[in-house]
Amino acid sequence: MDAVRESAMRSKDASFAMQGLSRESRDQALHAVAQGLVADADGIVAANLEDMAEAERQGLSKVLIKRLSYDHAKIEESVRSIHSLMAQEDPVGRLLASTELDTGLVLEKVTCPIGVIAVIFESRPDALVQISTLCLKSGNAVLLKGGSEAAQTNQILAEIIARAAEAAGMPAGWIHLLETRQDVAEMLALDEQINLVIPRGSNEFVRYIMNSTNIPVLGHADGICHVYVDADADLDMAVRVTVDSKCQYVAVCNAAETLLVDADVAPAFLPQVKTTLEACHCRLKGCERTRAIIPIEPATDQDWATEYLDYVLSIRVVDGLDAAIDHINRYGSGHTDTIITADREKAERFMNLVDSADVFWNASTRFSDGYRYGLGAEVGISTNKIHARGPVGLEGLAIYKWKLYGKGQVVADYSGPNARKFTHKKFR
Amino acid sequence: MDAVRESAMRSKDASFAMQGLSRESRDQALHAVAQGLVADADGIVAANLEDMAEAERQGLSKVLIKRLSYDHAKIEESVRSIHSLMAQEDPVGRLLASTELDTGLVLEKVTCPIGVIAVIFESRPDALVQISTLCLKSGNAVLLKGGSEAAQTNQILAEIIARAAEAAGMPAGWIHLLETRQDVAEMLALDEQINLVIPRGSNEFVRYIMNSTNIPVLGHADGICHVYVDADADLDMAVRVTVDSKCQYVAVCNAAETLLVDADVAPAFLPQVKTTLEACHCRLKGCERTRAIIPIEPATDQDWATEYLDYVLSIRVVDGLDAAIDHINRYGSGHTDTIITADREKAERFMNLVDSADVFWNASTRFSDGYRYGLGAEVGISTNKIHARGPVGLEGLAIYKWKLYGKGQVVADYSGPNARKFTHKKFR
Repeated sequence: MDAVRESAMRSKDASFAMQGLSRESRDQALHAVAQGLVADADGIVAANLEDMAEAERQGLSKVLIKRLSYDHAKIEESVRSIHSLMAQEDPVGRLLASTELDTGLVLEKVTCPIGVIAVIFESRPDALVQISTLCLKSGNAVLLKGGSEAAQTNQILAEIIARAAEAAGMPAGWIHLLETRQDVAEMLALDEQINLVIPRGSNEFVRYIMNSTNIPVLGHADGICHVYVDADADLDMAVRVTVDSKCQYVAVCNAAETLLVDADVAPAFLPQVKTTLEACHCRLKGCERTRAIIPIEPATDQDWATEYLDYVLSIRVVDGLDAAIDHINRYGSGHTDTIITADREKAERFMNLVDSADVFWNASTRFSDGYRYGLGAEVGISTNKIHARGPVGLEGLAIYKWKLYGKGQVVADYSGPNARKFTHKKFR
Repeated sequence: MDAVRESAMRSKDASFAMQGLSRESRDQALHAVAQGLVADADGIVAANLEDMAEAERQGLSKVLIKRLSYDHAKIEESVRSIHSLMAQEDPVGRLLASTELDTGLVLEKVTCPIGVIAVIFESRPDALVQISTLCLKSGNAVLLKGGSEAAQTNQILAEIIARAAEAAGMPAGWIHLLETRQDVAEMLALDEQINLVIPRGSNEFVRYIMNSTNIPVLGHADGICHVYVDADADLDMAVRVTVDSKCQYVAVCNAAETLLVDADVAPAFLPQVKTTLEACHCRLKGCERTRAIIPIEPATDQDWATEYLDYVLSIRVVDGLDAAIDHINRYGSGHTDTIITADREKAERFMNLVDSADVFWNASTRFSDGYRYGLGAEVGISTNKIHARGPVGLEGLAIYKWKLYGKGQVVADYSGPNARKFTHKKFR
């Protein structure tokens, strides 16, 4: 048997044992992991310096090398995150529903861990700590594959986390670090062992993962977000929200890429927003109707489907709300879209009919984020239409099972001419 | 463009329009469908008689031909089901959570339709009515593929349902009937248009679907369910539950296939259960330790992994609770498993550590069913570890979106040295 399959099978065995762990034992293991990181901080930093030196020898860019850095300050930050994770509500063991089927026959729907989660992430080593502790908190076994630039750091981190958690009672094999890209390809075929894949990286990478496996994937490829300025918008507010959605941080998935403007307010709004956006050094591309009002570069159909992740915004004039909704459902990525309007009915129509994870009224697209939503730790942002959608907190790493408490009841008694009747009394 | 992709794209467009429909309009459409079935009952029965005649010409078995029948009584039954579906709680528009992020900035997590559901089912034509009305109730567009034996019946039913619902305001194209197996193969590649596939049929068929698509699949291939009789079991209760789990209806996924018995009670229990099971004409196969107590056929490793769907039961003697849990997690299918014991702690350990959708204490495996659980209409039974697990009601056809209600807030105000603080007040 090859090594990846063996790791996955050991993970699956560990995941069975983790189903029964109390919150206390999982939090104790998290505490031990935090202590382990502090105790071995010098070793971690030394390994990280090796990775950074190698990255410099390989001529990696300064930005990438900076992302690779994991120093004492960052270790302390990871430790603080672990403590805040311990304080969070337990995603496991929550009673979602409870029904009396009949006297002495009670059904409970209770959250539990999913099983084995595979996470593939890029260079930042703090991601390894964050992901493995999220899985530990939620009682899931985890297979990890980090960026090869961080190989030494990832290796020592995984060893420390495994050793500390296992000494605190976690089953051996609950965490595995995969080494190579080939390992990832093999892992994607293991749909009997792995229950969920979470890829974190570039659009192309996430799309590759989504297209290469039958295992459910939680994540998003693109973030093509829209601001729609309605005829009934407060134009000052519209400028403010547009600029924030586009420019507050351009390199992220919840930044806006396209501005849609109702034809009725385009002559008043476009010159105003152009001035402010250009003051932020944002390049503008527009449809013909836009360019008849403000002199900017032309946009093509390709622009509507492009995630710039940069100081670039495409602008289109549309004939009212429904045209805006059609544009978004056609070209958007189902991530985050906002309408600026004073009309509540139009806002509700927009929020109902735009088929995206996050639909906003008079607010910047940049609010679409687990921390801002108050979810605590964020597992990722999902554009899936099942299981979890939008910013996903710890509860995305849980599923439920049905527990039925009886006294020897049999179905035969509830069948046939003298069948007992179910009471189906809902307690919760 | 080929016909299947075109149907799927039209379904997707229709699904966008369906996102905004009120409960009233969906229920009105259901009412219209029920009226349409009654009004065209003679036409439906005539089409069904053609299918049955063709099936006889083809030499199909009596059982299959009986399943194919859709007469006036069955149409009335479908109509009653539609009326009861109308009365059910709306799966769409439920407020799952509400948080004030800051004064005047409120986040809501609200259920909504998934989008486009593809359902592939076998010969019974009433399944078409049931599935399409479940999708209508939950605001989803649907692609259907039924058994070819029921082609005439399915055709007229789909026409009636489409016409009636569209006259009552549903968007054109919300329901499509696919014709051939080749259509199904093409459909499974359309992961941009189709959000969920629900296969209903044999194990092999479901497994084929699961292995042939990147679209999420809701369902179960096998139902290898276990009864474990613990040392602390009431043996009369254990006999009763074992017989019900195995024999009450053998051809279904929640019937038991393997009986596990703690070695301590095996000498007392096995002769007793053998007598009762053999009186039900159930064939028994056992491990060596079982056969040392009762003279039955030998069971092989293959038996532990077999879903008989027949009057056959495999029996294994195990050394206590944890050995039983290991056996179930190794050979089971994650469907339904029950423990018979008087000891609550052992029962809780079994229910926590057995990694199945449905885990029971002192109750027959046959209770694992949407109707018995009080879920109302049943979409199917899922052994997935994400989205929906066990018997799935209408809520399995819904997902949620995040709605953020603001007054022009921007993220820049919540960043930097003078950042505003989020309040994160949970209303729900």
